[in-house]
Amino acid sequence: MRIEIVAVGTELLLGQIADTNSKWLGEHLAAIGAASHFHQAVGDNHERIVLAFRTALARSDGIIVCGGLGPTHDDITRDAIAEVMNVSLHRSEPVVEKIRTMFTSRGREMPDSNLRQADVPEGATVIPQTKGTAPGLICPVGHKVIYAVPGVPYEMSDMFDRGIAPDLQRRMAARGDTSGVIASRVIRTWGMSESGLTETLAGHIDGLDAAPGSMPHGTDRSSGAATVAFLASGIEGIKVRVTVRAEDDRAAADLLDAEEAEIRSILNATAGDVVFGIDDEAIEDAVARTLAVDGLTLGLAESLTGGLAASRLVNVPGASRWFRGSVVSYASEVKFSVLGVPEGPVVSEEAARAMADGARRVLASDVGLSITGVAGPDTQDDQPPGAVFVGLARAGHETVSFGFNVPGDRDRVRQYATIAALDLLRRTLGGATQD
Amino acid sequence: MRIEIVAVGTELLLGQIADTNSKWLGEHLAAIGAASHFHQAVGDNHERIVLAFRTALARSDGIIVCGGLGPTHDDITRDAIAEVMNVSLHRSEPVVEKIRTMFTSRGREMPDSNLRQADVPEGATVIPQTKGTAPGLICPVGHKVIYAVPGVPYEMSDMFDRGIAPDLQRRMAARGDTSGVIASRVIRTWGMSESGLTETLAGHIDGLDAAPGSMPHGTDRSSGAATVAFLASGIEGIKVRVTVRAEDDRAAADLLDAEEAEIRSILNATAGDVVFGIDDEAIEDAVARTLAVDGLTLGLAESLTGGLAASRLVNVPGASRWFRGSVVSYASEVKFSVLGVPEGPVVSEEAARAMADGARRVLASDVGLSITGVAGPDTQDDQPPGAVFVGLARAGHETVSFGFNVPGDRDRVRQYATIAALDLLRRTLGGATQD
Repeated sequence: MRIEIVAVGTELLLGQIADTNSKWLGEHLAAIGAASHFHQAVGDNHERIVLAFRTALARSDGIIVCGGLGPTHDDITRDAIAEVMNVSLHRSEPVVEKIRTMFTSRGREMPDSNLRQADVPEGATVIPQTKGTAPGLICPVGHKVIYAVPGVPYEMSDMFDRGIAPDLQRRMAARGDTSGVIASRVIRTWGMSESGLTETLAGHIDGLDAAPGSMPHGTDRSSGAATVAFLASGIEGIKVRVTVRAEDDRAAADLLDAEEAEIRSILNATAGDVVFGIDDEAIEDAVARTLAVDGLTLGLAESLTGGLAASRLVNVPGASRWFRGSVVSYASEVKFSVLGVPEGPVVSEEAARAMADGARRVLASDVGLSITGVAGPDTQDDQPPGAVFVGLARAGHETVSFGFNVPGDRDRVRQYATIAALDLLRRTLGGATQD
Repeated sequence: MRIEIVAVGTELLLGQIADTNSKWLGEHLAAIGAASHFHQAVGDNHERIVLAFRTALARSDGIIVCGGLGPTHDDITRDAIAEVMNVSLHRSEPVVEKIRTMFTSRGREMPDSNLRQADVPEGATVIPQTKGTAPGLICPVGHKVIYAVPGVPYEMSDMFDRGIAPDLQRRMAARGDTSGVIASRVIRTWGMSESGLTETLAGHIDGLDAAPGSMPHGTDRSSGAATVAFLASGIEGIKVRVTVRAEDDRAAADLLDAEEAEIRSILNATAGDVVFGIDDEAIEDAVARTLAVDGLTLGLAESLTGGLAASRLVNVPGASRWFRGSVVSYASEVKFSVLGVPEGPVVSEEAARAMADGARRVLASDVGLSITGVAGPDTQDDQPPGAVFVGLARAGHETVSFGFNVPGDRDRVRQYATIAALDLLRRTLGGATQD
């Protein structure tokens, strides 16, 4: 089934916000085997929204429309759908009650403007709202369909998973639409350049391209070998994306497993332990896994990164089992008085080691990790912007330090320093670079 | 002139990369007064690209197409344009020479596949390439036009500035299309719901809509009063965006100044100090400004937020002048041993006050701000997920605390708690809610 995504909002056309919803939906439609041949964006204008819907219905089997379901006078998606369906809107009392309850539970009264969000085109069904006030809509138009969801990303994704994907899969099954699924897996690396990765994997990729049933970009083969793409993701490292088309999820997973194993093996033999995670696994998840192996607790001392490393670590579910805390010693005097760093330069390998020891002592942790450096734009302690020093203290080991330089403006220096320090911790505890 | 942006690339439809070009182009078209009523994305498929172009030409005056100008077999934008123009492609020898020279200057030989990039539709003119191998194209189609540029963002933006914008401005002048510029300003708020803001400003907005020359959303009036839109931005609060169309940048700025002053005045009279910044100003910028008034330094004690508040504050240039640091006391024992919080429940107003006092003492700061609470999914100290307590200690003032609940999953609870705590600090120091 061919689904067209229509994003509604003048702010999209004016470039005031980025359309991240269409990207997310494109990825998740592909994952369930639905094709998407076109996307559109249109402003908050009734005639143009209607025209966009009619254009989409002429060339696709269905539409997912994002946005324009809010309570304000700009939110006219419901009216445009009703016009395309050639029906009127009626106010759904159950939806009114649900919205009223959401306001009451927050101790507030529902403004009258929110009543519009309970207007439903005749013949449409509702995807109940759980995170916001607007429900989603499933609107049949002849043998085609318009799905409408709010533009707020987490409401949109929730309604896609709960309401749209199951309905779409039922429709595809009823049509005998079993064109298979497209599935991807992202292998996440840190420590190699994009061209280095490309060269290391060139022989393997050439082999895939020459394989029978290989899947060139943009074609519609019904099955085939994997394709491999590289995505430089800045502070998140370089991603290697493997994409396969297969009959079902199971077959796709098997193909992806084989491909992942092969790529890991090639990289490991050539470049060492550069793969830190798969798909959404971030560097902090890898750190958590590594600490769990020996049941170690971690304490940080952060200067340059100002709490960024700590704020990433607490994102890992269950972090309280191994994360003690962080001393964000932004002012030099805090390094001296709280962490016991000897007075003197605070951007150096010596200072990094003293900070790591101080973190272990103050936070009573098994492992102490410290990050100091220069965000810029000025030099500090004769070190240039981008200079980073990382210290690592462990019970029964000599405290060690690492110095390196990272590129970018203040924010990027901090982000790079954070992931680089966490990667050093992962590799050191994992035994790859030390011991 | 109404320009439709068409982004070409199957990877866009599959959600493998985000379409940042359309956002950039939308913003820059608005800045020169060109309207954009629709955007499209389409895959690397000849028939569908042709259909997307014909759809766009039927409803807009011109197209900017991004992508599909590379040297591979997937790059078929040139062919699709030639079909829509009903002409053939010819190979441009000057373009061939230019591409060959680019390769030679990098010490490499030009692969034959790059010759395709020198194919130009009959009747089209070339925007010379300066950063990559593919030239841009300006292709007349009757009295309309197709501009084609590479999908690489920095090649695209360079060709827009050098080739498209001047050509477009000439065409607009020739048509007598002197509709001026569109400019926007964002007024950023925290502490009011979207519907509350809408109702508070409803009278003002009705007045604007009724004004002669008013510019309803998405229409093409040649001049006019402001339009006001609301954008719920989750953890960044609710944005009120004012958009004006005016003859030139100067006139637009004057209109925006007047509108900002009016909206501030209405909100201040009704809801108090809810406006914390303008455009890209974040809550941490507002905190920095407020601290600077009295020359105060700040120290944090963070539990729930795990360093997130500190990592936002250090983003402000010059933060080292007023930011001392943060004790990220994720483990309860760190609260007791480092901050001197009395043993007992650590999610309470009492604990928040003790943490704020501890932060002031340990970090030797004028002001201590603390954040404790429950990220979830489990309750802690009998408090539900989303419970947040903020403490605020100042020299010469009694230490105070605030308790409230925020919605969302672990990550959102932390993000909301951070901005809410920083907003409380801003308001308290600014004298709006205390003293």
